[in-house]
Amino acid sequence: MTDKQVNIQREGGGEAANGARRPIMLAIAGDSGTGKTTLTAGLVEALGRDRITSVAADDYHRYDRQERKELPFTPLNPKCNYMDIMDQHFHHLSMGNPILKPVYDHDTGELGRPEYIEPREFVIVEGLLPLHTKKSRACFDIKVYLDPPEDIRIAWKLRRDTTKRGYTEDQVRDDLKKREPESVEFIRPQRADADIVVRFAPIEERGETAEDPLSAYLLLRPTISHPDLTKILDEDVKEGMHLKLRRDDDGKPVDSVHIHSYADREDTRKVEEAIWAELGVDVPVPESLGRIDPETRDEPLALTQLILLYHMIQAAQSATD
Amino acid sequence: MTDKQVNIQREGGGEAANGARRPIMLAIAGDSGTGKTTLTAGLVEALGRDRITSVAADDYHRYDRQERKELPFTPLNPKCNYMDIMDQHFHHLSMGNPILKPVYDHDTGELGRPEYIEPREFVIVEGLLPLHTKKSRACFDIKVYLDPPEDIRIAWKLRRDTTKRGYTEDQVRDDLKKREPESVEFIRPQRADADIVVRFAPIEERGETAEDPLSAYLLLRPTISHPDLTKILDEDVKEGMHLKLRRDDDGKPVDSVHIHSYADREDTRKVEEAIWAELGVDVPVPESLGRIDPETRDEPLALTQLILLYHMIQAAQSATD
Repeated sequence: MTDKQVNIQREGGGEAANGARRPIMLAIAGDSGTGKTTLTAGLVEALGRDRITSVAADDYHRYDRQERKELPFTPLNPKCNYMDIMDQHFHHLSMGNPILKPVYDHDTGELGRPEYIEPREFVIVEGLLPLHTKKSRACFDIKVYLDPPEDIRIAWKLRRDTTKRGYTEDQVRDDLKKREPESVEFIRPQRADADIVVRFAPIEERGETAEDPLSAYLLLRPTISHPDLTKILDEDVKEGMHLKLRRDDDGKPVDSVHIHSYADREDTRKVEEAIWAELGVDVPVPESLGRIDPETRDEPLALTQLILLYHMIQAAQSATD
Repeated sequence: MTDKQVNIQREGGGEAANGARRPIMLAIAGDSGTGKTTLTAGLVEALGRDRITSVAADDYHRYDRQERKELPFTPLNPKCNYMDIMDQHFHHLSMGNPILKPVYDHDTGELGRPEYIEPREFVIVEGLLPLHTKKSRACFDIKVYLDPPEDIRIAWKLRRDTTKRGYTEDQVRDDLKKREPESVEFIRPQRADADIVVRFAPIEERGETAEDPLSAYLLLRPTISHPDLTKILDEDVKEGMHLKLRRDDDGKPVDSVHIHSYADREDTRKVEEAIWAELGVDVPVPESLGRIDPETRDEPLALTQLILLYHMIQAAQSATD
């Protein structure tokens, strides 16, 4: 089946194969250490675990850690992943069908017993290459690419891989070097196919570094219908947040939203509530957004998650029209 | 997708999704210890390993051996298997698509790392329940059910499970008792959906037992087009082989072929060559048919395999028409 056929089939109505409403599909693509898991976790909590299925595209690794040692490519390479099976599974999920998902264990580096998954109301797929093929892109309602500056990403990856995945700092740095050409060739081109590009970065003009709280830069492409921010980001809140019409690197028109790390909580609350109001739902803005750990709330992260949440709920609403 | 849609899609032409010819699909269903593996092995050898993909439906077990100990049902129960994933995978294979097949290890009783499979020209699926659902049945060109007398099956299962799978005789007998109601409820009804029912059995009228070489009783239903045996099984060979028009237990008309264990090799060769000639292929009858071990050739098994082979090649020929 081609990407076109997938599109037509998915637009054939909100109903999935089993008569239920077809799931809303969100892809979060990005290199290793770009914060995919943190971004996803807040969305899962906001929607509720019983309404959302979260899939890690890393599970589609074709080789285990031992086997990869002998190979001339890294996990960033499509050759290192079951790309056709990913396409097949994303298509099944998008139609409301169950899959038997492979499982890659990041602790042991082994491939194990697969897992039976039935898609819930929402499906988030996060990973290195979920937007690599035309067919997989056709399966998603909302496509996000995470694009932090390299020094931020390296700092994040070093912290995680040396604490949670048992690597030494030298190993992580060697690995990053080996992966660089494949990141350029396979990971970064996915940015061009995203509806939303998210960049968490320090504000250089203010002399901030990776250790300071980060600001969010969101690129909103007119490939999906965003909330009307021209009304929301008005004079009152301009201090901590900006909306700018600009051209992307490829010359195409985009909206660019900048949420400063120092944005005032009262201001972000106003913006959150205005975006939320556009959905016309009768529940308050979820409190879990922006949570980095139980004590820390991050405003740029919260607003980013809120915009993704807006799109997921909006897509669910229009699927029932 | 319904079974009807599967049928329509499969009849849409011989071409698979990737432009290659779609594979010919053979299902061999039967209870544990009915000789599925022996029957399959001869077909694989006759066609050549590079032309055939063989899938064990046992791989779709939902629980490992340890987990099953706590459960109120046996592997014969559809609840104990990923039936919907089986349907999905058989459909993919039938359309020429690859699958990531789960793997059940009969030695350890564990579920392991799945295996990437691309269907070759022919696909054989053998197992307990490949004909259980309407949708899976729609995926096969030829449907076979193995139906030995219970005492023969028990003797075969005892021999295999105590020698190759590390069980004691008491364990196997207990297991058979536990499985009996589920065999009645789920396995045996598949007989009604088979195009060919195969029974290897001693000839009771001759006082034969399970220890004697067995005869083959084939039930050929007019659901697929069999070679015209009325011309082939003529007077000359009637000594060791019979063709009879009769009604099956359900009253429906069937052809019944009986190949005696004592059938003369010269006679079976004539029949083999006559069946083979109907295919119009320019290679001789494969020598590997009927092989039980490197030294033993079994005539009833050879002819049974030849008839299945006839159907596989015939289906491949008509798919290119």
